[in-house]
Amino acid sequence: MKHPLFSHHHPVTPEMRAARNRQKPFIIWFTGLSGSGKSTLAGQLELLLHEKGFRTFLLDGDNVRLGLNGDLGLSPADRRENIRRVGEVAKLFLDAGITVLCAFITPYEKERRALKEKFGERITIIHLTTPLELCRQRDPKGLYADWQKGRIKGLTGLDAPFEHSESTDVQLDTSTITADEGARSLFERLFGQPHC
Amino acid sequence: MKHPLFSHHHPVTPEMRAARNRQKPFIIWFTGLSGSGKSTLAGQLELLLHEKGFRTFLLDGDNVRLGLNGDLGLSPADRRENIRRVGEVAKLFLDAGITVLCAFITPYEKERRALKEKFGERITIIHLTTPLELCRQRDPKGLYADWQKGRIKGLTGLDAPFEHSESTDVQLDTSTITADEGARSLFERLFGQPHC
Repeated sequence: MKHPLFSHHHPVTPEMRAARNRQKPFIIWFTGLSGSGKSTLAGQLELLLHEKGFRTFLLDGDNVRLGLNGDLGLSPADRRENIRRVGEVAKLFLDAGITVLCAFITPYEKERRALKEKFGERITIIHLTTPLELCRQRDPKGLYADWQKGRIKGLTGLDAPFEHSESTDVQLDTSTITADEGARSLFERLFGQPHC
Repeated sequence: MKHPLFSHHHPVTPEMRAARNRQKPFIIWFTGLSGSGKSTLAGQLELLLHEKGFRTFLLDGDNVRLGLNGDLGLSPADRRENIRRVGEVAKLFLDAGITVLCAFITPYEKERRALKEKFGERITIIHLTTPLELCRQRDPKGLYADWQKGRIKGLTGLDAPFEHSESTDVQLDTSTITADEGARSLFERLFGQPHC
């Protein structure tokens, strides 16, 4: 039996917070395999936005999984719950007037589509299509090596699926570009103008 | 079996975000019974801070329980998880350079103490000591009436405990003051100067 709930109307509104920051906050969500460059590129794009005067924040699989989602593992149900919670936190940041970058594998199409439905034009989903073989070579967290040695299971791209994506807005392969080049390219895509 | 995790170091740091906002972000956490005035007072204090130029956000039991914590009920375990998650989200807002006001019953001393240990000088816990009888008269959400009619169970102060508090920094009884008076009084307590 749950208590009835309703939303309070507080004196300071999301619109007032956004106006104070002189920005229309939005979400930039990176999806792709481990090692595809999500966190690196999100960090570099955040730096570019910060230098331009945006108020920003970065949520990624590592800092969220160490804190808020520290109770979750890598089962399909926990992966879905991970993305659900991050989507809700991203919503809170939008309400706070902050542009938020999210870097999560986000392997299931259903969750990606739910994000699009929830946020509409306020979210851009960027799929890093870096080939699996390069991700394995980079292996920034040693996950692929651990999987090879049988130490872990459920690694996306190997024994866990990365579902085909139809809901992403931008595809980018980080094989042959630097993080800075990638960030500048995305900035142009997002704002329709070159970054000088 | 979980994957190893580590924190990324991103180019934009919490210090850079706070500096951009020209503030040292902190947490103001309201604890007390339903109807004690937590959300109202938090909203009014946020308005005062906003008018002073602070970058702020307000988390409360209602807007968080409708979203992020929509999967949680009112069992002791769920109440603890509710507070744990909000603490983690508040941490993210600090890292984003935002001063965050939290309005949650927070009935258990263990969780209040955990917040003090986690945030140290960056949190002020304010206990609204408004008497139960007045909270029942106000009954802004109709919870006390529902409880009386047997429609709900586990209402803090009646058949669920509000544990004695030793970890709170400020006690305030909202019986005889307006929200604006309460907010101004708290501002003085927090900043050691009258609000002109």
